[in-house]
Amino acid sequence: MTLQPGFTGSPLDRADHLRTDENALLALRRDPAARALLLRGLDPITGDDGGIGWRPLDADDHARELLFLGLDDGAPRFAALDWDGPRGGSMAVLQLLHRLPAADVALYGGARSLVDWHYRHSFCARCGAATTLFRGGWGRRCGSCTAEHFPRVDPVVIMLAEHEGRVLLGRQPQFPPKMYSALAGFLEPGESLEEAVRRELHEEAGVHALSVQYLLSQPWPFPSSLMIGCIAPVASDTLTLDTAELQDAIWVDREEVRAVLRGEPGARIMTPPPLAIAHSLLTAWASRQ
Amino acid sequence: MTLQPGFTGSPLDRADHLRTDENALLALRRDPAARALLLRGLDPITGDDGGIGWRPLDADDHARELLFLGLDDGAPRFAALDWDGPRGGSMAVLQLLHRLPAADVALYGGARSLVDWHYRHSFCARCGAATTLFRGGWGRRCGSCTAEHFPRVDPVVIMLAEHEGRVLLGRQPQFPPKMYSALAGFLEPGESLEEAVRRELHEEAGVHALSVQYLLSQPWPFPSSLMIGCIAPVASDTLTLDTAELQDAIWVDREEVRAVLRGEPGARIMTPPPLAIAHSLLTAWASRQ
Repeated sequence: MTLQPGFTGSPLDRADHLRTDENALLALRRDPAARALLLRGLDPITGDDGGIGWRPLDADDHARELLFLGLDDGAPRFAALDWDGPRGGSMAVLQLLHRLPAADVALYGGARSLVDWHYRHSFCARCGAATTLFRGGWGRRCGSCTAEHFPRVDPVVIMLAEHEGRVLLGRQPQFPPKMYSALAGFLEPGESLEEAVRRELHEEAGVHALSVQYLLSQPWPFPSSLMIGCIAPVASDTLTLDTAELQDAIWVDREEVRAVLRGEPGARIMTPPPLAIAHSLLTAWASRQ
Repeated sequence: MTLQPGFTGSPLDRADHLRTDENALLALRRDPAARALLLRGLDPITGDDGGIGWRPLDADDHARELLFLGLDDGAPRFAALDWDGPRGGSMAVLQLLHRLPAADVALYGGARSLVDWHYRHSFCARCGAATTLFRGGWGRRCGSCTAEHFPRVDPVVIMLAEHEGRVLLGRQPQFPPKMYSALAGFLEPGESLEEAVRRELHEEAGVHALSVQYLLSQPWPFPSSLMIGCIAPVASDTLTLDTAELQDAIWVDREEVRAVLRGEPGARIMTPPPLAIAHSLLTAWASRQ
């Protein structure tokens, strides 16, 4: 089965070759078709058509740091940094995103990660001096030591441990009532994704992966993760939970996963919404056999 | 076939739960079995047994920032930051690593990425103030705005485009003579790994991936990448090279890849050494059929 994971499918051509061409960037800014993403802090503002909103560039933009997001059918798309405005986002953004077209969600997600990275990285981590944007917004350069800094993407492994036709779902203390999801954790320097999956399953649930099968991936813009979804058969269903990470964990069979995904009333648990990769992982697993 | 990609297989238990336990960290430092990795800047110093070298902790270490790497069969392993010493590495380190046991290479690689991250991130990217180590070295905290910063891992996609039994290898201008490798590029905010593979193949070689198959991954500690290795069948073998990135690109069949991997004299090309994931990708592809 083919799944479209959340936050994928952006229509933009990133046009990487234009980022380093200062004359081309100037021409893109002056293009009458150029548009800037409408944001309130990090939150999207919907347009008249119900998708994410855009505005023409205005005179003020020439004094702003503009991020060149790419070309949409040839038309330049930007996001403007507003250092005097709010820089945060609301908790309700996911509810809004679930009502937007998938392509808009993907475009917004990538832009949000990039905008947020600038707001949180305006100083040089090497020497502490102020930095300025370069490469059309795909980097910042230190005005003092000239170090170059690039947007972060943090790889996260998220996996379904599998044992005799059931998968393991865990519950973090801050989850909404009844919510259970796949176990997950940040990949660290010095490990492959397979090693990260094995480590996280062992740390959080005390289970030993026999193998690791990559399934699918997606970006997650809170703030900027690459979610790497895997399935890992494990040697035993005996759990030793890290109670600092997990409040509870349960084994769930296909029938129950299918019922939960269908939204049947009276289900024992809830699973994450379709934009979350855990939903795609469970959908893919439930469709097997 | 089972491959052990380079820089994987570290023997250390990262013992994540000890990082946030200040009393436990103090006890680990005082453990007579505790050892610190021998480094000259970022380069490893080999020990008497021909592997990477270790020294007991000394009185000076109590004034140093110590990174808790993990437990080796219960014995604490650290790396010490030396802010007064050299902070760079030599270009010849790969030649040295090829002579070390795989487990030592993996352990050193993870430690190197972590040490290097500290040296390049001692100031707060949010406000510019000085930071200090916390979580046993797996983060830095700002003394002014209290922002917390964590080690970076930069995902990179590296892929063999495949067309009618041949794979695409490219040559960057700075490569040694005759060296060709798989195409590769940093994954950006807002894309899945499949989207990054498609984008990079299109940008660098003008080829269109029909599908993307994940194969294997490894960390690459120069400075801290997660290399994600894929194979992607493409629609045509007609190339449009981005000459800013690639000096040349060629299609190579299995027979030639096998000959190059066997080290047969007179080969048209050279491929990256076994520690590089490109070598593992080519080995996996050559063994098919």
